[in-house]
Amino acid sequence: MFKKRDNIKEVEEGKYLAPKFDENGLIPVITTDFKTNGILMHGYMNNEALKKTIETKEAHYWSRSRKNIWHKGQVSGFIQKVIEIRIDDDQDSIWLSVDIGDGASCHVGYRSCFYRSIPLGKIKNTQEMKIKFKEKKKIFDPKTIYKDEHNPTKL
Amino acid sequence: MFKKRDNIKEVEEGKYLAPKFDENGLIPVITTDFKTNGILMHGYMNNEALKKTIETKEAHYWSRSRKNIWHKGQVSGFIQKVIEIRIDDDQDSIWLSVDIGDGASCHVGYRSCFYRSIPLGKIKNTQEMKIKFKEKKKIFDPKTIYKDEHNPTKL
Repeated sequence: MFKKRDNIKEVEEGKYLAPKFDENGLIPVITTDFKTNGILMHGYMNNEALKKTIETKEAHYWSRSRKNIWHKGQVSGFIQKVIEIRIDDDQDSIWLSVDIGDGASCHVGYRSCFYRSIPLGKIKNTQEMKIKFKEKKKIFDPKTIYKDEHNPTKL
Repeated sequence: MFKKRDNIKEVEEGKYLAPKFDENGLIPVITTDFKTNGILMHGYMNNEALKKTIETKEAHYWSRSRKNIWHKGQVSGFIQKVIEIRIDDDQDSIWLSVDIGDGASCHVGYRSCFYRSIPLGKIKNTQEMKIKFKEKKKIFDPKTIYKDEHNPTKL
């Protein structure tokens, strides 16, 4: 759908969008809060989701668990209004800067999916590495919002 | 190497690190500047790179093009000192907050790999979508720094 990638110099320093989708047809996407730059989530798009996001200015992803285009916020109401989209040097990852107001982006209920921190330093036992909660309070109750929707987390 | 993932509730809301590596043994990593939260790069780690990063407090990645552990800055000198590591809800992506001082993180020479922006709105022709440069000046000259190193960008 997008421009063919036939020249490394063009991909890196050229003026044309020529995104690289992986062997599954996906490109990784980092989504940040446009006010704080804090990371909200990490997701994936296929070429259709990228096109829809550019045109509608609302974030669309590819749901790897449901295997369909996912208009973020369609169930929860927490639509992500796109402020800016950037692409990286080799055009194989996307940065979405979005406005979610006072909402949340994490299906567990927190504002950001990245609510836990990994302590640094010498590892004693890789089987018992404790992570610390950095967000104390959920923005919403997933049971109320999602009801019978499946949980996208996979083991 | 890390804890087995045998319970979704534990993975999402538990206190233990149990990262998910994909079918290639990799987990995606977002790296941000700890001062501005601006995104510097998007990379990948295998379990060894994650362990080294936690223990040494310097970012290590898995180079998909060279197929080896990559101590970021070993050639360029732009070491990434890790300030914090976060992991997301389903523990399948990592956020590294790092200090690179006045350095750069992009092999093309810019501070951030995300130096170009994709204009929003109706797409006329997917073959000719112009992207805009948001960083005007390179921090370093790749030819001087990398000399004969191969270019990691792939078509």
